[in-house]
Order: sequence, then structure tokens, then C-alpha cells
Amino acid sequence: MRQEHAEQIKNVMQALKAKGEVNEVYFVACGGSQAVLMAGQYIFDRESNVPSHVYTANEFVYDTPKNLCADSLVISCSHSGNTPETIAATKLAREKGAMTVALSNLVGSELWEAAEYPVHYDWGKDVSDSDKNKGILYGLIFNLLKVLAPNEKWDVCLQELEKLTELSEEAKAQYAEQAKDWAKAQKRDPIIYTIGSGINYGEAYSTAMCWFMEMQWINSGCIHSGEYFHGPFEITDYDVPFMLVKSIGNTRHLDQRVEDFATKFTDKLLVLDQKDLHLDTVAPEAKQYIAAILSGVVIRLFIEAIAFERGHSLDVRRYMWQMEY
Amino acid sequence: MRQEHAEQIKNVMQALKAKGEVNEVYFVACGGSQAVLMAGQYIFDRESNVPSHVYTANEFVYDTPKNLCADSLVISCSHSGNTPETIAATKLAREKGAMTVALSNLVGSELWEAAEYPVHYDWGKDVSDSDKNKGILYGLIFNLLKVLAPNEKWDVCLQELEKLTELSEEAKAQYAEQAKDWAKAQKRDPIIYTIGSGINYGEAYSTAMCWFMEMQWINSGCIHSGEYFHGPFEITDYDVPFMLVKSIGNTRHLDQRVEDFATKFTDKLLVLDQKDLHLDTVAPEAKQYIAAILSGVVIRLFIEAIAFERGHSLDVRRYMWQMEY
Repeated sequence: MRQEHAEQIKNVMQALKAKGEVNEVYFVACGGSQAVLMAGQYIFDRESNVPSHVYTANEFVYDTPKNLCADSLVISCSHSGNTPETIAATKLAREKGAMTVALSNLVGSELWEAAEYPVHYDWGKDVSDSDKNKGILYGLIFNLLKVLAPNEKWDVCLQELEKLTELSEEAKAQYAEQAKDWAKAQKRDPIIYTIGSGINYGEAYSTAMCWFMEMQWINSGCIHSGEYFHGPFEITDYDVPFMLVKSIGNTRHLDQRVEDFATKFTDKLLVLDQKDLHLDTVAPEAKQYIAAILSGVVIRLFIEAIAFERGHSLDVRRYMWQMEY
Repeated sequence: MRQEHAEQIKNVMQALKAKGEVNEVYFVACGGSQAVLMAGQYIFDRESNVPSHVYTANEFVYDTPKNLCADSLVISCSHSGNTPETIAATKLAREKGAMTVALSNLVGSELWEAAEYPVHYDWGKDVSDSDKNKGILYGLIFNLLKVLAPNEKWDVCLQELEKLTELSEEAKAQYAEQAKDWAKAQKRDPIIYTIGSGINYGEAYSTAMCWFMEMQWINSGCIHSGEYFHGPFEITDYDVPFMLVKSIGNTRHLDQRVEDFATKFTDKLLVLDQKDLHLDTVAPEAKQYIAAILSGVVIRLFIEAIAFERGHSLDVRRYMWQMEY
């Protein structure tokens, strides 16, 4: 992690220590940024006794949780730093006296100014993955947990984040051919569902909402692995495509059940098994976190491949950037 | 509410008073039952200072939140009372010393026996809507809030639940023709999205996952109104159908924005506006809760109509009841 980012996170930690108590952590953002924050909520929920929630920003603004107060910690995120709902939510939280931390790619953006503790992340090629949005979020979370749920494993996890760039490159090389083959086979499909659980649910969510629906105009829906058998699985048929992220974490059993069933009834099940990632060099306590980030890298490969096959650039929008809404 | 149900809920209240403190409320179920409980979590979140969460049961079992302990309150639900994941989750919660409340239609079911405080609800024709699953859930929640977030409005809300049967009949009569017309127009559509926010998100969720995908084999996906503009709205086109539940609660602005935009770009937007419901006889503090339940009644009308037009019975399953999974 770059010095600048490390210092910004250090500021958060110092403020948190001074604050002492946190009644609730609110993760607040929109769309893809909300999806990224979901992993933060997951880790808090499983690793600490501090309750935490994820909100889409405008619901947080218009229908504010009663427990939001000066004891709360609000973590928001917007890549551009100009998402109006997220700015409004951060301002509201700060007015209520909550501690506000905002992640953004743009220093000095309106979100940056709205939050008491802004944290920057890098973007683009030739930057370290540990300094991009997910690397920085996980770095922030592990540091917060050092204060709120002390455990020596957080230092190990922080160290392992430094391997992200190398591991990402390796994962991309590993999946490059499969991504192309999948894209060729699926390019005419009018709908592709995504499935995931636990820490990976956010990745499944953003794949459906942002990659497929927003950037490819392919119909989609996100299904939690634990919910698949309680409704959604009846849609399964030989020609219905699914993309399943199979966890190496505690929810693996849920994903396995989906795979075992769906394999029998659709010819179009793509399983992205985190067990196939090369994580030998990663400390055991960090594996599931690193894997969750790498799954996002792998999915992106598949999306870029299908975008190419369909001749549909990931940069095309028909509403966003084209009009006011 | 029938005497039997009132007494079961009274038992819960007495135990809760004796318990004193609740660190977190967990709403745990699968599919349609989980969707019903979402409204309970919503009310807790906005009306109390007790943190609350919704889990699909198997994630709760395999990846248990750290904060689950003897101070917790776990509310589970299964219509048949034999959903294995929900039974396992309830047993786990009880082993951890949490207070366990289970809603079920079947007295003596395995879920019934698993929970310390089982609460029955009625089902079928000729029973009062205030004694069905949602009436009982809301009745339970309002009673719990009398203990955990005392306010005289809970007694008002409890009283208003008694009007549910009459109001449901009225809503059905009001929407009967529109439901038939919509069903005739949409019956060939391969996908129908659902959109909602706030207390109505659970209804939008179960409409996508259970009504459309499970019981009609129509592709679907559930979109939060606040998320629509952050990805999903790019899928909108003149022939893409959406069903929007428009709230009379605090999130109405979010739904309104969706309506204003989608109206311009699709010919197939169905808006079910809770403002159109006849709620003159309902006390102001109860209106949004009664409306949330009535929206479910109205949606069911539309689903029954499309099932008829498609000749696809709501009782047909290709996997459930047909095999082990």
C-alpha cells in the first residue's frame, strides 16, 4: 500500500481509537461501489461484535436508520466522488455526528470534502492492486478490526494484500483461454444469472447489475446460493446460463449444492472455483479474502471476453452520460 | 388476531421482558419466508435502536455471525415447518442460548419443536388476513417494539391489522380488471423485472424469485429502486417489462424517480402505487405497514392472472416435490 493511502487509513484508526465505542457500522454507496462495500460488511459481521449494515445511499438518506448517531461509523464509496446520493448520505451522517470515512479515486471531489476521513484509491493500469478500490477497502477493514476486534491475523492479512498484483496477473493468465471459450459459447444468450454466497455475494451482485445489465445490456439477476433452492432453481433448464462463484470460505457447502444440482439440469453452468486459484503462497487466514478479490479479477476477464465477442464496448451507455435523470 | 395467536405472542413478550436486553435481532428463513421477514427487519431498523439482520438460513448455519449469543433474538419462519436449513438455523441459535421465535403454519412441525417460542399463523381461504403470515409477523413485530421501542403508536398499528381482511377484499376488487389486462399484454414476455424499496423490497424480492422464477418459469431479477440508476437502468428498453411497487413511505422519492425515468423508455412499466389503495379508514401511523401487506395481495392478483393467461398453474414444479436435492 502506498504511503499516502497508509497515512489516510492511519488517520482513521487514530480517530477510531479516540472515539472508543462504535454502536453500528454503516456501509453506504450505490451500484458497483455498494457491491464492493458488501465484502466489508461481511467481514465485520463474521469477525467482530459490532453490528454493520449495507445501504444503497438514497435509502439511507430518505429513510435513515434510527440507530445512526454520534457513536456510528459510516463508510461510503464513490469512484468519481460525485455520486449525489452518496455525497448526501455522507453529509447526513456527518451532521448526525457519526464518524465518516469515504473511499474515492478523486482527491478533492465533493465526496472527499464531505467526509471527515477521506481515503484515496488508485485506478488504471500499472498501479498496484493493493492500492485499488478493493485492496484499499480490505486494508481499511483489517485496520479497523485491529482496533475493534483485535487479532494478530489482521497484520498477516494486511501483509498478504501486497501480493495482489502478482496473484491477479497469475489468475488472468490462468483463465484467459477459458474466458474466450465461454464468451464464444454464451455470446447470443439473452440472460445470464449470477450466483454466489458469503463474502462473494457482492461480486455476484455487481456482475449481474453492472457488468451484464449496465455494460452489456444482457438480462441478469443475482441469486444467493442459499436461496437458489427456495425459488430461483425452478428457472433452471438446459439452455439457461449461470455463473457461479464457488467459495473457499465457510459458505462453500452452499455453492457446492448449487453446482451439484445445476450441473444436472443446465448445459450452461460456469463454475469459478476459488480452489483453482493458486493461493499456495498466501497465509491460510488471508486466503478467503484474497480469493474474493481475485474472483472479481477473473470475472472481469470473462466480461471483457464476452464484450469483445458481442462487439459491445464496456464503455457504451444509452442513458448514463447521455442525459439528466 | 385469534386468541391462540395472541397468547403465543404474549409468551414471546413476557420472555423478552424477562430477558431485558437484546444485542441483535436475526431474521432467518429461506425464499418466500425470508422475503416476508425482510419487512420485520425494516421496521426494527427504522423504529428501534436494536440492530437487526436478515439471513438466508444456510448462510446463518455455515457462516454464523459472530455476535450471535445468549443476548440475541432469532426470528425464523417456514410455512410447512419442515425447511431443513431453517430448522438447523433455529436449533443452532437455541444451542447458543439465543431466544428463538419461529413462525409456522404447522403446529408440531420440526421447526415448531426447534424453537423455544413457536407462533402459529393461519392459511387458506376463509381465514382472517390478520391471522395469516404477514398479519402475524407484523403483530409480533409491533408487540416486540412495545417492549424494545415503546411508543403508543404500536397499539394503534396492532388495532389496524384487524382491518386487513376487509382492505384486502377491497384491493382485490379494485385491481381485478387491471390485473387481467396486464396479464394478457405481458403473457409472452420472457422476462419481467421487479422494483421496490424500503419496506416493500421483500415483496419485490419474492415476486421475482418465487412468483416469476419459481412458479411461472419467467426470468426475473429484483432491483432496489435506489440501485436502478446505478447499473440496472441501462437494460431498460421499449419492450423490457418492469413491475414497480411505489411506496407511500419514506422511500417514495426513490420509486418516483424510477417511474419518471422508466415511463419515458419502456412501454411496459407497471406501477402499483400504494397511494391508490383505499386507506382512508387506516390510522396515519399504520398506513405504510398496511399498504406493504396490501401490495402483496395486489401482486398476487397479477400473478394469478398471468398464470391463467399462460396456462401455467402456480402449483407446477419441475424440481421441488419431484426429487431430492
